[in-house]
Amino acid sequence: MSCRFLLLPCFLLLALPSWNEGRAKQAILQFVQDTTTPSHRDYIAPDDRVAVFDQDGTLWVEQPVYTQLAFAREAAKTLPPNESVQSTEEIVAKTHSGMTVDVFNAKVAQWLQTAKHPRFDKPYTALIYQPMLEVLKLFEAHGYRVYIVSGGGQQFIRVYAQAVYGLGPDRIIGSAGKVKYGYQNGHPELVKMAEVLFVDDKAGKPEAIQLFIGKRPVAAFGNSDGDQQMLEWSQSHAGRSLQVLIHHDDAEREYAYDVASPIGQFSQALMDEAIKKGWIVVNMKNDWKVVFPP
Amino acid sequence: MSCRFLLLPCFLLLALPSWNEGRAKQAILQFVQDTTTPSHRDYIAPDDRVAVFDQDGTLWVEQPVYTQLAFAREAAKTLPPNESVQSTEEIVAKTHSGMTVDVFNAKVAQWLQTAKHPRFDKPYTALIYQPMLEVLKLFEAHGYRVYIVSGGGQQFIRVYAQAVYGLGPDRIIGSAGKVKYGYQNGHPELVKMAEVLFVDDKAGKPEAIQLFIGKRPVAAFGNSDGDQQMLEWSQSHAGRSLQVLIHHDDAEREYAYDVASPIGQFSQALMDEAIKKGWIVVNMKNDWKVVFPP
Repeated sequence: MSCRFLLLPCFLLLALPSWNEGRAKQAILQFVQDTTTPSHRDYIAPDDRVAVFDQDGTLWVEQPVYTQLAFAREAAKTLPPNESVQSTEEIVAKTHSGMTVDVFNAKVAQWLQTAKHPRFDKPYTALIYQPMLEVLKLFEAHGYRVYIVSGGGQQFIRVYAQAVYGLGPDRIIGSAGKVKYGYQNGHPELVKMAEVLFVDDKAGKPEAIQLFIGKRPVAAFGNSDGDQQMLEWSQSHAGRSLQVLIHHDDAEREYAYDVASPIGQFSQALMDEAIKKGWIVVNMKNDWKVVFPP
Repeated sequence: MSCRFLLLPCFLLLALPSWNEGRAKQAILQFVQDTTTPSHRDYIAPDDRVAVFDQDGTLWVEQPVYTQLAFAREAAKTLPPNESVQSTEEIVAKTHSGMTVDVFNAKVAQWLQTAKHPRFDKPYTALIYQPMLEVLKLFEAHGYRVYIVSGGGQQFIRVYAQAVYGLGPDRIIGSAGKVKYGYQNGHPELVKMAEVLFVDDKAGKPEAIQLFIGKRPVAAFGNSDGDQQMLEWSQSHAGRSLQVLIHHDDAEREYAYDVASPIGQFSQALMDEAIKKGWIVVNMKNDWKVVFPP
């Protein structure tokens, strides 16, 4: 990468400071530079600059259980004794419905203030990946509209997304339950229902992207089999595009897991697909100078 | 309204040129000025500046039938003879499914190029309301994010929204059918299904606003009973808010209809509600200098 222009490449040379030099960092920087340089053949107009990011395992820790499930298990303890909850689905449904959106938001916010990760003994919102925060900022600084596209619950993520990622509620796409409009003492309210509207995982990701964004993203970041279709959809964009997978191979600083994990499985089939299609695989251990914010 | 500041009020004095002086124009201008003046007690931070607009009857003509239904009836003529379509629901379902999103977009775009309104003998996209276009631009120029929230089909509106309203696909909320991700000759595609995901009308409007925007709009524009809940929801915003209803009372230049119309009914109950809650009722005949763009 040369310092051809006055501002852009000089800025890029300082970008992604938490990334080690290597193929992944180079590919991300080159993509952003080329697609935002008007004279470049791969220039993308601002309206079409859409970048999508999976959340669990891509932007923050997803082991040993999804953060949202840790919340649900804790919230389930306060359910009335006659509410028998057995399966994970039941626990999530019971703790995520039967209250207004505002009450749910307050419950999540309160839990996040005190809950700590069992291994790192830090708030979950401190366990975001510093290198990926830098990628979010890099894309936004270059006129990209950034969205989270998560298999997790949309409303759960919205509670902390502004503070943690700098992303407002309209940039959060996730699995969604139905809400019901009604009145409490004459005041309008929205109540969360137990019924699922759609699941934003695997094929559900490009389907939800169509619903919310209405165009193909030109850049897509994920870490597991659940992200494959989203990356494929991004690559079907007519022009230049970028697909990136985070590979968790760092047991010392975070976790090492792929084929065998019940959470965030990164199968051999996905790795084969990544190689075949030219998707960038980030090796956490070698590509990231640090994992979490200092 | 005084010319207190250097730029803002002077700009506002020139805004909404197609509106006659009166309570409606004054209320809209005053709202925009107050909520975007940092020193004003009703100042609204940029992140919270969300304005929502119904489409049919609020931004363009909805008589004698919704434009989308005119498209569907024409498209139904090309269905195979063995496809028996009877009801309006069947006609819409059959003509809006069983093809990729890209093919559907092309069909709508092609139809819009040649179809003409039966009374005005102009393309449907020429029958938008010039005064409302000016309102859209006024809000956008003052840092508001503007969304269409329509009972009509989201994907139908997206086809022309950028050209006609200057709004990208992510700003269009409407009734939505399911889409299915799959492959054609190994290439990813999204196929429109006949199954309804949600109907964006009446209580469905605040529900969809929650799904897409995730916060209460501070300004809401509509014209019929289907917009009542959206306006209520906007008014439940903790701070200052604005609710506006377009009343079609201009048979000469457009249409006069309210209680009796099968389309866009503006009932006496809605009028009572508007008066009780301080919603602005725009009388097309007196408030608008012109109806359509010159």
